[in-house]
Amino acid sequence: MVKDYVLNLQVVLANGEVIWTGANTLKNSTGYNLTQLMVGSEGTLGIVTQIVLKLIPAPVFNLVMLVPFNSAERACEAVSAVFRAGVVPSAMEFMERDAIDWVLQYRTDIAVNVAPDVKAHLLIEVDGNDMDVLFKDCERITEVMQAFDAGEILFAESAAEKDTLWKMRRSVAEAVKSNSVYKEEDTVVPRAELAKLLKGVKDIGAEYGFKSVCYGHAGDGNLHINIVKGNLTDDMWKNELPKAIRKLFELTVALGGTLSGEHGIGWVQKSYMDIAFGQTSLTLQKGIKQLFDPKGILNPGKMF
Amino acid sequence: MVKDYVLNLQVVLANGEVIWTGANTLKNSTGYNLTQLMVGSEGTLGIVTQIVLKLIPAPVFNLVMLVPFNSAERACEAVSAVFRAGVVPSAMEFMERDAIDWVLQYRTDIAVNVAPDVKAHLLIEVDGNDMDVLFKDCERITEVMQAFDAGEILFAESAAEKDTLWKMRRSVAEAVKSNSVYKEEDTVVPRAELAKLLKGVKDIGAEYGFKSVCYGHAGDGNLHINIVKGNLTDDMWKNELPKAIRKLFELTVALGGTLSGEHGIGWVQKSYMDIAFGQTSLTLQKGIKQLFDPKGILNPGKMF
Repeated sequence: MVKDYVLNLQVVLANGEVIWTGANTLKNSTGYNLTQLMVGSEGTLGIVTQIVLKLIPAPVFNLVMLVPFNSAERACEAVSAVFRAGVVPSAMEFMERDAIDWVLQYRTDIAVNVAPDVKAHLLIEVDGNDMDVLFKDCERITEVMQAFDAGEILFAESAAEKDTLWKMRRSVAEAVKSNSVYKEEDTVVPRAELAKLLKGVKDIGAEYGFKSVCYGHAGDGNLHINIVKGNLTDDMWKNELPKAIRKLFELTVALGGTLSGEHGIGWVQKSYMDIAFGQTSLTLQKGIKQLFDPKGILNPGKMF
Repeated sequence: MVKDYVLNLQVVLANGEVIWTGANTLKNSTGYNLTQLMVGSEGTLGIVTQIVLKLIPAPVFNLVMLVPFNSAERACEAVSAVFRAGVVPSAMEFMERDAIDWVLQYRTDIAVNVAPDVKAHLLIEVDGNDMDVLFKDCERITEVMQAFDAGEILFAESAAEKDTLWKMRRSVAEAVKSNSVYKEEDTVVPRAELAKLLKGVKDIGAEYGFKSVCYGHAGDGNLHINIVKGNLTDDMWKNELPKAIRKLFELTVALGGTLSGEHGIGWVQKSYMDIAFGQTSLTLQKGIKQLFDPKGILNPGKMF
């Protein structure tokens, strides 16, 4: 995860003093880990002004494949099976059919053929320094995909094709935005629970009458759920939807997951923090906030 | 690093309440990172009772090589050059000549030939799922080693030989202990600064009249410095050595490193914490301790 690459931070504290949180080393067992306390604290504990990162050698080669499924849940189930087969892809992205269709409408420069019965895609990338290994990885991935009833896999045959597939994935958020008012949830669960999460999202949507478009970093168990306003009334959107979202997060936490994988809490999700944390943990976290920022001047009102 | 594999902790707090610090997910941007605040806190913030770890597929193959150098500093310099050449070994261990000799005296069951002019060894392991890749990695490592004037490299040709080489490395601490009273420092620096650290250790040793045996996880920039009592008087050992150690840690921090890579602070190193942290950071850390353990009942007197 990205945070694992953060070794040391220069931070301006609420009282104007400047500290370095750790050391520029790969290992550190000296004092409390203020570095990771700062990472993800959303500017509520201090202002980060310098970051020391761990770098790794850039992999020389990559291969990209687009895998269609007639069942979105089967696509989700296939994700953890790849890791269990001993392959660790550098990227493994999930896109529901609607996400794909909306992108293809929105970005007319992107041309990807999608068969009518496709319900979801996995976009999978492997990288490394040896092409033979990558081909073997792709063979193993293909076997797993077939075991989960995948359709015909598209292997990107050029840098331009890889670029097109990645553009498709990366345009989903914009495409949804251009289509409707929406709310994005950033749920994350253990990756083996993805299919249950997806099914739960759709069940809750059916119960509360909302449509959702799901996509995201399936390899990390991180599912972005775009809840689409569409024809929902303003009253529904304002008063009923929060109940549905609460139910959604309760499901996420019940599956061993939590509210946010990467976007954070901010204003929008703070009323759901009690689902992820008991009162004791929240009190400790607020105590840390109070310790670092007794006057409440750092990003006030966020998170808690 | 090991801490990067810790996803979630069950912790008993000072007041007897039990919390989970995070979620069982690979990514988490929900609230403050209490998980990493607990890791390495040496039992001063809570008692860990369950740990959720990230697992990765076990690599199928490995290769192990022992590389002799006529200069310990050159051995240290070679370490970061391997990573710059694009190879990331699974282990890269440094052993000074004395470390090796003492092991061979202490563990008469370990037979490794060491030429008279060898001053240090690197023990290097690569692992993965493809033998061809590992052979290529070893070729690249060999080129780097030769550029740093290594002697004849010993490739372990069987599981038993690998085992012997690892036994040699793992017996260093015991061998030193059997030889003399000693103090172990757990210094860590950016890996490219290892040679400067080693030279500094020897210079400080010459100034204060102590002998040291150095070894450790060179690939992590983590150098264990065993300061040997040998013929030092009790007065020197008790009253002069702490000054030398202070100087040593000042050097470590000046090189971008810190006091401890993996062993922690505990009782023994707490009087050196001011070298790694300014007053502001120490006050924050003590504030966190106070918040989690207002009565000071958790591992009292440790770290601060």
